[in-house]
Amino acid sequence: MVGCERGNKEIAGCRVSLYPMSDQFITLLSKSIKTNRLDAVWSDTDLFSTLYRGKQESVVDAAAGLFVRTYRPEVHSVCELTFSKGCPGDVAQDYVFNNENPTPNSSFISQYGNFTVQCKYSFYAFGITNYMNEIAEVVTLAKKRNLYEGSTHYVTILEGTAAELFAYFEEVLAYADEHIEHYVLEATLSVNSPSK
Amino acid sequence: MVGCERGNKEIAGCRVSLYPMSDQFITLLSKSIKTNRLDAVWSDTDLFSTLYRGKQESVVDAAAGLFVRTYRPEVHSVCELTFSKGCPGDVAQDYVFNNENPTPNSSFISQYGNFTVQCKYSFYAFGITNYMNEIAEVVTLAKKRNLYEGSTHYVTILEGTAAELFAYFEEVLAYADEHIEHYVLEATLSVNSPSK
Repeated sequence: MVGCERGNKEIAGCRVSLYPMSDQFITLLSKSIKTNRLDAVWSDTDLFSTLYRGKQESVVDAAAGLFVRTYRPEVHSVCELTFSKGCPGDVAQDYVFNNENPTPNSSFISQYGNFTVQCKYSFYAFGITNYMNEIAEVVTLAKKRNLYEGSTHYVTILEGTAAELFAYFEEVLAYADEHIEHYVLEATLSVNSPSK
Repeated sequence: MVGCERGNKEIAGCRVSLYPMSDQFITLLSKSIKTNRLDAVWSDTDLFSTLYRGKQESVVDAAAGLFVRTYRPEVHSVCELTFSKGCPGDVAQDYVFNNENPTPNSSFISQYGNFTVQCKYSFYAFGITNYMNEIAEVVTLAKKRNLYEGSTHYVTILEGTAAELFAYFEEVLAYADEHIEHYVLEATLSVNSPSK
């Protein structure tokens, strides 16, 4: 990233890492990665994550689609999400912009994304001194949606359905896009935890 | 975090989340959480992570101890680490400072931490405009230790033994402590990935 030319400021991205705590994790992941609809994003799967790049709403749609498709009621699974936009080191390549059908997974998410999810997340804004105020704004948006469960060291806790949480992430990222040059949202989603 | 008093600036913290991709994940995690030596840190396990707070070197020692103790040669496992220090919303509580024995897991890590680990990570510095330069410094430290494998969208890639990677994290955090008020290191460690 360091030393690259300034990229296209419209390119949003998300790294989605999925961890099904099951001996069947390869089968589960292969299936959801293959069936997720990618009409509106550039996609690449590496050792750590599946990476989506495109318009912000399309990236959220693809990330939500992959998460919901990996869900199994009997499997404890965790998903690590890194949404990022505006990095000065980003490059104007590896992306798809699809204005005609920007959210091809939306009806699938509405239909199957009604299971409960616990979430920890942190919102990071760079290059500005009032970043704590921006974090407070983002947390306020969660409270308005009744997703807020509390704050603890280094993270804020949310609970809601998968569809509700990704709708909130989209709202946060749209807010950030209007107010902040470079920002990252790090979220960890947990389903069917035996600790719950 | 938001709205709290300014905390003790010496308190470092790390959230350690472990994801063994195995039906035996509960047994594995319970055992390593129980046997890790906690003489030098405050500790709490919640739904998402085990959290350690104390002196920076003690927090790195505890995080490394837990990661190494969870390793099994036959299990693909991922560990998500959030090191954080200097948050203006942090509070001066929930910590242990142990100056007499600050790294009680160090001999265990030296002895058992020689397995290979793939890592993606990002270093975040807040409230400053030259944060990209600080990222470049941190990456240079990885190159000097021959851990650097490349950079891709949103993360830098490392490979080394567990002991080598945590020694590098400690160096990064010591550098950050001297130069930056508030910083976060987000790292994901992967072992025995079938993709490798």
